[in-house]
Amino acid sequence: MAMTSPIEYEHASPQVRQVFDDIMQTRKIDKLNNFWKYLANDPKTLARTWSSIKEIMAPDGALSPAVKEIIYLAVSVSNNCPYCVASHTAAAYKAGMTDEMFAEMMAIVGMANETNRLVAGYRVPIDEAYQP
Amino acid sequence: MAMTSPIEYEHASPQVRQVFDDIMQTRKIDKLNNFWKYLANDPKTLARTWSSIKEIMAPDGALSPAVKEIIYLAVSVSNNCPYCVASHTAAAYKAGMTDEMFAEMMAIVGMANETNRLVAGYRVPIDEAYQP
Amino acid sequence: MAMTSPIEYEHASPQVRQVFDDIMQTRKIDKLNNFWKYLANDPKTLARTWSSIKEIMAPDGALSPAVKEIIYLAVSVSNNCPYCVASHTAAAYKAGMTDEMFAEMMAIVGMANETNRLVAGYRVPIDEAYQP
Amino acid sequence: MAMTSPIEYEHASPQVRQVFDDIMQTRKIDKLNNFWKYLANDPKTLARTWSSIKEIMAPDGALSPAVKEIIYLAVSVSNNCPYCVASHTAAAYKAGMTDEMFAEMMAIVGMANETNRLVAGYRVPIDEAYQP
Amino acid sequence: MAMTSPIEYEHASPQVRQVFDDIMQTRKIDKLNNFWKYLANDPKTLARTWSSIKEIMAPDGALSPAVKEIIYLAVSVSNNCPYCVASHTAAAYKAGMTDEMFAEMMAIVGMANETNRLVAGYRVPIDEAYQP
Amino acid sequence: MAMTSPIEYEHASPQVRQVFDDIMQTRKIDKLNNFWKYLANDPKTLARTWSSIKEIMAPDGALSPAVKEIIYLAVSVSNNCPYCVASHTAAAYKAGMTDEMFAEMMAIVGMANETNRLVAGYRVPIDEAYQP
Repeated sequence: MAMTSPIEYEHASPQVRQVFDDIMQTRKIDKLNNFWKYLANDPKTLARTWSSIKEIMAPDGALSPAVKEIIYLAVSVSNNCPYCVASHTAAAYKAGMTDEMFAEMMAIVGMANETNRLVAGYRVPIDEAYQP
Repeated sequence: MAMTSPIEYEHASPQVRQVFDDIMQTRKIDKLNNFWKYLANDPKTLARTWSSIKEIMAPDGALSPAVKEIIYLAVSVSNNCPYCVASHTAAAYKAGMTDEMFAEMMAIVGMANETNRLVAGYRVPIDEAYQP
Repeated sequence: MAMTSPIEYEHASPQVRQVFDDIMQTRKIDKLNNFWKYLANDPKTLARTWSSIKEIMAPDGALSPAVKEIIYLAVSVSNNCPYCVASHTAAAYKAGMTDEMFAEMMAIVGMANETNRLVAGYRVPIDEAYQP
Repeated sequence: MAMTSPIEYEHASPQVRQVFDDIMQTRKIDKLNNFWKYLANDPKTLARTWSSIKEIMAPDGALSPAVKEIIYLAVSVSNNCPYCVASHTAAAYKAGMTDEMFAEMMAIVGMANETNRLVAGYRVPIDEAYQP
Repeated sequence: MAMTSPIEYEHASPQVRQVFDDIMQTRKIDKLNNFWKYLANDPKTLARTWSSIKEIMAPDGALSPAVKEIIYLAVSVSNNCPYCVASHTAAAYKAGMTDEMFAEMMAIVGMANETNRLVAGYRVPIDEAYQP
Repeated sequence: MAMTSPIEYEHASPQVRQVFDDIMQTRKIDKLNNFWKYLANDPKTLARTWSSIKEIMAPDGALSPAVKEIIYLAVSVSNNCPYCVASHTAAAYKAGMTDEMFAEMMAIVGMANETNRLVAGYRVPIDEAYQP
């Protein structure tokens, strides 16, 4: 199972190193986390994924970097992905999330998952006012 | 299937009307959406759910009302719940979400769902730095 | 898209009719619901699915037929499957579920979905006492 | 990441201790599991979650305590939440679930997840008889 | 809710038309489906999504176009997304999927969803042989 | 919690051994993985699950064994089931999946999960052409 080992910088191809370098420069870090090292097993998916994340998480949007990271974390929590929760919790704190924000986000994620199922079971039809 | 019809205000018990009144007063609205009318089939779940949402979505938190609604919407989109997407899109716009914010949130929800699966398939182990 | 039309009894092959007959005799009904008519597009999956459901939902188990149907419904609600919620709500009422049971089941499904995410976000480690 | 460490009883605030005490008295236990200790990082979510669970899982409902715990476990299994499966398996056995009940519940959860997808892929429309 | 209406070609910006043209040329079609028209509400997400799909679904890979579409459909069925099931069923048939292939894929998707839950509930530990 | 320990061949009942033997003969292996040993806690579910998998994964279908295993793996990745990802990655490589196929499958699973949510959030209605 060759695809599930990390590709370290020193063993990476020039194509992969270019992406690694851009990640580290953009994020002002000098160490990559495991996500990128494992994704490097497929250089095309590595490049495409980084390019998409770089665009989506760019700091000049209508949502602040902290809010963007909080949304990313909220979805990862809702999807029950342990690695994603661990890495995006760190990223959200770094982007300015406080403990109070984390706690409020968590309460909302829990509640949304609860009411989403109440809607399904009580078979609630969409109100006329919410039609597009 | 008695539980899947809406309970209109005029046919509601005093206990249910009390919750209905509090929802309308708190939200400064004079019409309830279907979610509450269907939930009223179980007065205990209606009261408990409203009490929880009232506390969680209160406007005095560390996250702004717009950000709270955007997180609620993001989870509902990720869970693919049509009613929830419809009602929380309306709620988020009302709370101050702009089209730009909606578009950025959607991009993040899509990306998070993509990378959550890349992590699962490449079996990425949690970095030492992310351990609690 | 030939596979997404219902196969009516009168147009069914002898192999499919045999399954249709067994469903109707076992359940003491004279009309099949859409699930079986659509599944009949693949006679092997029809036969295998019916054989599995017949065994699993047999009335002689440790769980009563009503409880079995309530569990089936609970999972369908949690998975947000509109057809499944509709058909298993009907089946559960037929098997003896009362409105009170439905309401209690719904409250549990909502709560489980909420606490499942709280666990994921707060990264709760498994207690020593729960290890197998 | 201050929010992902357990709050032990001896370091808990009076507000948190009050909830901890009520959990232990209600459940007749003298040790809390990790779920509550981690949730205590947000005293409001701790109090609200306990209050909701206490009401929902109360032993005087239409469903027996064992059936309630089995439904909670069924949803946790369906959601693939390792902590939740571990803790609710223990809770269900304590409430009276037998090995036979566990096995039957598991068979139903598996089957429901299978047929929920068959419905989605064969695009089965809701029968007239199941309309609310 | 300005973001949930389709953008028709004649009202699209030059930036959006460029993507629309590339989709139609690449796929040799003269009519766009709703997915692209709705996504055009966010030109950046439209462009990024099309660019990613164009690369991923390119016909020169190790997997044939039919197999690629079958995998896309399998995930959409598993996620219970009605639009995605409808559009990717059409796409898979166009790419060469036969009724027999559809039926076999559906059986696998159902079974995988069943056994994924059996694993969760029986808490099956990963075999030594499967460790990376 | 008697149901969450493996049943080894030497302690298995004749009924369970018969299934174990058929698995090993059909797959030409002399060692069972944990999935079957744990499932053996419920001999009926063990027998039914093996019988279903044997039929579904039979090598004489319209889809090749490698493609069948790739679809099984794709769903397991999408469902974020660590055991299932580990065991079906091994099974897919054994059936002929190459690293290139794995990488392409992973890209599709990620993309499908992304676009499935874009569809939900932009509330894309099903095109007339996709109606059954």
